[in-house]
Amino acid sequence: MRYGFKNAEEVKETSLKYNLHSWSVQGKLNPAVVEKAEGIYYYTADGKKMADMSSQLVNLNVGYGNKDIIDAIKEQAEKLAYISPAYAIDCRSKLAEMVVKAAPKNMGKVFFTLGGADANENAIKIAKLVTGRYKIFSRYRAYHGSSFGAGNLTGEPRRYTLEPGIPGFVKFTDPYLYHAPFPFESEEQATEYYLGQLRDQIIYENPDAVAAIVMESVTGSNGIIIPPKGYLQGVRKICDEFGIMMVCDEVMAGWGRTGEYFACENWGIEPDMITFAKGVTCGYAPLGGVIVSKKIAEFFDTHKLDCGLTYSAHPLGCAAGVACLNFYEKEHIMDKVKERGKQLGALLEDIKAKHKSVGDVRYIGLFSCVELTKDKATHEPLVPFGKDPEGIMGKIVGMLKAKGFNTYSHEACIFVCPPLIITEEELAENMAILDEVLTEVDKMV
Amino acid sequence: MRYGFKNAEEVKETSLKYNLHSWSVQGKLNPAVVEKAEGIYYYTADGKKMADMSSQLVNLNVGYGNKDIIDAIKEQAEKLAYISPAYAIDCRSKLAEMVVKAAPKNMGKVFFTLGGADANENAIKIAKLVTGRYKIFSRYRAYHGSSFGAGNLTGEPRRYTLEPGIPGFVKFTDPYLYHAPFPFESEEQATEYYLGQLRDQIIYENPDAVAAIVMESVTGSNGIIIPPKGYLQGVRKICDEFGIMMVCDEVMAGWGRTGEYFACENWGIEPDMITFAKGVTCGYAPLGGVIVSKKIAEFFDTHKLDCGLTYSAHPLGCAAGVACLNFYEKEHIMDKVKERGKQLGALLEDIKAKHKSVGDVRYIGLFSCVELTKDKATHEPLVPFGKDPEGIMGKIVGMLKAKGFNTYSHEACIFVCPPLIITEEELAENMAILDEVLTEVDKMV
Ligand SMILES: Cc1ncc(COP(=O)(O)O)c(C=O)c1O
Ligand SMILES: Cc1ncc(COP(=O)(O)O)c(C=O)c1O
Repeated sequence: MRYGFKNAEEVKETSLKYNLHSWSVQGKLNPAVVEKAEGIYYYTADGKKMADMSSQLVNLNVGYGNKDIIDAIKEQAEKLAYISPAYAIDCRSKLAEMVVKAAPKNMGKVFFTLGGADANENAIKIAKLVTGRYKIFSRYRAYHGSSFGAGNLTGEPRRYTLEPGIPGFVKFTDPYLYHAPFPFESEEQATEYYLGQLRDQIIYENPDAVAAIVMESVTGSNGIIIPPKGYLQGVRKICDEFGIMMVCDEVMAGWGRTGEYFACENWGIEPDMITFAKGVTCGYAPLGGVIVSKKIAEFFDTHKLDCGLTYSAHPLGCAAGVACLNFYEKEHIMDKVKERGKQLGALLEDIKAKHKSVGDVRYIGLFSCVELTKDKATHEPLVPFGKDPEGIMGKIVGMLKAKGFNTYSHEACIFVCPPLIITEEELAENMAILDEVLTEVDKMV
Repeated sequence: MRYGFKNAEEVKETSLKYNLHSWSVQGKLNPAVVEKAEGIYYYTADGKKMADMSSQLVNLNVGYGNKDIIDAIKEQAEKLAYISPAYAIDCRSKLAEMVVKAAPKNMGKVFFTLGGADANENAIKIAKLVTGRYKIFSRYRAYHGSSFGAGNLTGEPRRYTLEPGIPGFVKFTDPYLYHAPFPFESEEQATEYYLGQLRDQIIYENPDAVAAIVMESVTGSNGIIIPPKGYLQGVRKICDEFGIMMVCDEVMAGWGRTGEYFACENWGIEPDMITFAKGVTCGYAPLGGVIVSKKIAEFFDTHKLDCGLTYSAHPLGCAAGVACLNFYEKEHIMDKVKERGKQLGALLEDIKAKHKSVGDVRYIGLFSCVELTKDKATHEPLVPFGKDPEGIMGKIVGMLKAKGFNTYSHEACIFVCPPLIITEEELAENMAILDEVLTEVDKMV
């Protein structure tokens, strides 16, 4: 074994001794040791083959062992592993051009960061600089990262540690139709309701103080909440009316996850900024960023961009990004996702029809989840908001993992977001496992 | 050329068209194009050889083209480029062990991030979680990163964009002896004065509400401000008195820059947390982190660590880190820095004695700067705080660059922080260039 470890057990023990692990009570951990991975599968040291049906943290769009990206990283490491963001280097220029060209037509330039949180941090800073205003609107049931700025955007318990909050951060309600306050007759009616609420709230908060509205184009880790017809277009209109920057967080939904390069393209809108990370390199090297409109880019021709980090536009990330975006293009990944997405949607609808524990299924492209309920009629979630005292959701995820289906849960939702390269057979096979486990879950409710 | 670029000019034009560059008015930029680098030198596309006397952003401790780190990245990219932070993998366990063992004896575990800003973000979160308090003390003339949390710690103009500030972030004054309110008779007297001020301020702010004091062990980008005798020990005592977490930001000063693995070791103190980035991988792959004491680590055995990022403990960063720390050890870098640091100190004292434009020189290990003044008697800085209307400092840096000496400036300070592998001859040769340029500067004041 590498690094002088005697065996996998020692790797695990050393990790438990010295690594602090995210979002956990450390004393309860028992991390799997991973030694190799290929395609949609990774292999644990105790010999289990796992189909990665969440693409890790919904970032591994191309799956494991993508040779193009690996080779690009190796070549760049050899050539020039680091030079500060002030310099122009080939992969840095190239990726910027490719990112802007992949984005909606109104987009002009990109500021590269390392991940999703710092992409959002910088988007808020840019909105403040451009508008001279300080209030930032974002939604409940949204996750935008765990640093102070991104975390203050976040509208769920992962924000609480950051309180008392930053002045001027305001939350509004997302169009979570499955748990709407009353049944809507149509998507259009829901849209009208939620936009009306938002517009009123902006007026009460003083529109002249509002710099930005930040939202996930499709809400990801809070349960694949897909905007109803006309919603994003309506938010765009409200932003135009009041001179507010519309920022779409596409950290999870972007780069092909929904079958388009950016999820907002499904509704034909042009945001003022798009934040991204994950799928731009699939995590082979860390990279994120903010794409800004031509108009914003022009503003900074004559104003100082007050943003910076030592590893902005890191060469390894940029090289990996170029290779990754070329791979999407060469392999027609957008078409493949649309195709596989149809199969996934049909399978999810079957599951919803069949299982009494399944309240809702939501899907777009290969971005989907199954929401579990105690009662199909009332929509009562299987676990209450922010709590799971008996660890039911963890048990269900454990049952899936035991059968080789890797994923994670959030509130009462189980994610199904496989690598975008998944084949028809692999998808069918793994959805059959989900079906089996849900049969067990039906007995529990 | 790679990526289909016709020439370096096209790389630059593409960058100006599509990249947003840090901390700049974009319309005024003319970035150098870099194509190769080796040792302490990088080469621009127009044929210039540049000695990197700032180690880029004081991160490239081992210089360019370090084969051990490059090979480690290549090997890890091939083996497993990404797996989420929840899993145990060999390089992740190994680096955690090595980092904790390199740190002061009271340290227990490490939480890995991507850079310096997010290291500090997480240190503040941890301090709040552990103490249940919310106020955070940090100093003027300090830089801790540009995201909202780290930026609110920052005590200089790079913070202003982030205002209105986060409630409970309080600033105190650093012991900047060269600009002290009155001349101290000794370092000890200065220490007593600044510690008294700090202790009073904590009492007025309510000690029971103060979670942490965050400070750079040696202030870096605000001008290599070295704590006077007994100062850090005194802060440690104040923290102990009131149950406050002492957080040393070693993002710039750590990993050998001062001749010790961590700068705080120069004063023999044991902080509760140390944040780091830069020198742990020298930027070959992005990595940062927070080292926490055994006591804090134990707290999280039974409490949830409310921290997380998709790329926490990224495999490439961990592999690069192991190789980098092994290199420091194998090449006896700490000893070399102490040796070269003596040479540097002597050369700087000569420069100070010789040039009327040089007010102060400050140095520890290979961490140093020259502070320029209008008047040696009054200490009036060459440029006023936060301003340089005539761009004097930029001109001086430009004169140095024209002679092949790369560095940057901040306020009236010019940094001299070469790669830790610099030879005696290389250092002498480049300090002679600085001497030449300062002769020109003398004529300007
Ligand atoms: C929508 C969204 N925004 C931001 C983030 C934060 O990204 P990171 O973990 O890279 O900081 C995430 C992470 O899951 C996300 O899903
Ligand atoms: C002392 C210190 N802390 C934090 C940071 C922020 O690090 P990063 O740029 O990696 O976010 C820096 C960057 O220069 C620094 O010098």
